[in-house]
Amino acid sequence: MKRREFITKMGAGALAAGTGVTALGAAQAAGKRFRWKMVTTWPPNFPIFQDGVKRFAKEVRRMTRGALTIQVFAGGELIPPLQSFEAVSQGTVEVGHGAAYYWAGKIPAAQFFTAVPFGLNAQGMNAWLYSGGGLELWREIYAPHKLVPFPMGNTGVQMGGWFRKKIETVNDLKGIKMRIPGLGGKVIAKAGVNPVLLPASEIYTALERGTIDATEWVGPYHDLRLGLYRAAKYYYYPGWHEPGPTLEMIISKEAWEALPRELQLVVENAARASNLWMLSEFEARNLEALRTLKEKYHVQVIEFPGAVLAELKQLTARTLQEEASKDATFKKVYEEYQQFQRSHDAWNKISESAYARAARDR
Amino acid sequence: MKRREFITKMGAGALAAGTGVTALGAAQAAGKRFRWKMVTTWPPNFPIFQDGVKRFAKEVRRMTRGALTIQVFAGGELIPPLQSFEAVSQGTVEVGHGAAYYWAGKIPAAQFFTAVPFGLNAQGMNAWLYSGGGLELWREIYAPHKLVPFPMGNTGVQMGGWFRKKIETVNDLKGIKMRIPGLGGKVIAKAGVNPVLLPASEIYTALERGTIDATEWVGPYHDLRLGLYRAAKYYYYPGWHEPGPTLEMIISKEAWEALPRELQLVVENAARASNLWMLSEFEARNLEALRTLKEKYHVQVIEFPGAVLAELKQLTARTLQEEASKDATFKKVYEEYQQFQRSHDAWNKISESAYARAARDR
Repeated sequence: MKRREFITKMGAGALAAGTGVTALGAAQAAGKRFRWKMVTTWPPNFPIFQDGVKRFAKEVRRMTRGALTIQVFAGGELIPPLQSFEAVSQGTVEVGHGAAYYWAGKIPAAQFFTAVPFGLNAQGMNAWLYSGGGLELWREIYAPHKLVPFPMGNTGVQMGGWFRKKIETVNDLKGIKMRIPGLGGKVIAKAGVNPVLLPASEIYTALERGTIDATEWVGPYHDLRLGLYRAAKYYYYPGWHEPGPTLEMIISKEAWEALPRELQLVVENAARASNLWMLSEFEARNLEALRTLKEKYHVQVIEFPGAVLAELKQLTARTLQEEASKDATFKKVYEEYQQFQRSHDAWNKISESAYARAARDR
Repeated sequence: MKRREFITKMGAGALAAGTGVTALGAAQAAGKRFRWKMVTTWPPNFPIFQDGVKRFAKEVRRMTRGALTIQVFAGGELIPPLQSFEAVSQGTVEVGHGAAYYWAGKIPAAQFFTAVPFGLNAQGMNAWLYSGGGLELWREIYAPHKLVPFPMGNTGVQMGGWFRKKIETVNDLKGIKMRIPGLGGKVIAKAGVNPVLLPASEIYTALERGTIDATEWVGPYHDLRLGLYRAAKYYYYPGWHEPGPTLEMIISKEAWEALPRELQLVVENAARASNLWMLSEFEARNLEALRTLKEKYHVQVIEFPGAVLAELKQLTARTLQEEASKDATFKKVYEEYQQFQRSHDAWNKISESAYARAARDR
């Protein structure tokens, strides 16, 4: 509860331009205009992801009648996609949008603020971040980098990926090449998979030519657009490796603190509204795309066998423990996250999960 | 998709003060201040519900530097709790907060915009409303009442309720008196329950004295505060009757149209941000309270037997069909809702549900 109260206070003032912002100060600032540059890790026109960021910037501009104008650049347009963390940290640009786990090389613990295998789903992530102390922890960890992070977007549970051959036992994973990044890649490597990294633009061709045997991407909507159903026959669920990835906005501390309090609140509310907008879009577009994949393209949508999931879950626990033993901050966040997740699991079991079963299976 | 595009356009302008709002018009409006009164259906200091509304009003005031000030009144402070629809519709006050199913007597179809038994969960409701055409339908239906509705809050799946005796078969429901309102009450009445209505203030005593045999309320957090664990022994799940109730804000059309576009966008973003804030609070507080109920008060948390849920599901289909045959608008919304729900179920089954099972049970 302490952490939560602290967040509330931060929301109410401590994060503001200065805690001494008065009505007079705000009035003086009223005439001041701010022009920010925002770089993302997404391709131009990447649906929902990049579109959501552009929508956010437009809302902020219109809400503030141009007092805060944010010019949005896709990955590579101004800064290479995976250099946005440095660019914002150094103040080259004011804002970035991407996913915290892209910075795992610098900050291994950042991965908890996107998604970890067999971790929290979207509703759990939001509850942890906004109302369970997660966001305060995230801000603590980014503070030395002069960055203020905000949750802004969530894909919901992703799909498990496209496979050219059926996975019937754990043995079927051995030796296959799969495009799967991050912790999911580390976990599945322990099961014998050879995880490779490929940018979006190369995935389809690699899979189609058999350079890789499998790939994960996002969910039905994005996977359909990439045409992956033409390159592999089996579409596996669930996305055990990315159960509810949170997208992040990062703002340079200096730019943030220069904003008058009312503009900070506009940014904060718009980010939270965008968080929900993106999740709702993913959910609505995914359910339509799933229908298309099944009815029009006759894709075989298959659940991973229980024994495979059980094995991956064990390997996840081992992987997370190994990472924790290498990095004190990772260990600290892991412990807090796990504690929240245990209670969340107990609640989810009798609420969302029990309800879904009751509504569908009876 | 048509409906969705229309919503986007509405967000982008058609709902604005006038589609002719120019930069100059906005600048002229800049000096104008708006003072609104907002009445809710909630008791004063009702946690998360009323607190969330007060938080929303505060955010709006601060974001607009007082250009839009909303004074919040709890149910009964200015208007009796269940008369807020009329009060806002007639323009006595500008804004209301409550739940659409309270207006079922006037608009039976309104119930779909809160929750229906065995219907969409919170994530599904948000996807339907924001990205699946639901909100446009809602606005169409409220337009003759001169009201503009907004989703603002969601409790998540509620609990099934507190029972003084165990429910082992459908027969155990016959003849019991249960506090359960709305469609849930109509459904369970068909199973032989005598549904009664009681305000919050009377529930505990009625249950403790045996005037009623069972009651539903909200979820672990609110149920714990009401002390229901002292009055009944068995706490049933899941909340089949209210799987993801959306809370609503209603704004008088006239007041809404008098706002300059930037203030409309502030209200819209703050409402969407509050929607997520409330859901996250419910989730985080419920999981703590569930632990307390189990560990400290040794409450027996029990799943409804499968046969009971199956029976209630059948009775729900019958009830909804009966309601549809009595009211053309109900029928229209029911058909759209069902179509969305079918696709949502298919997606939820391989995403959230399959994931929850994989993460917990292996």
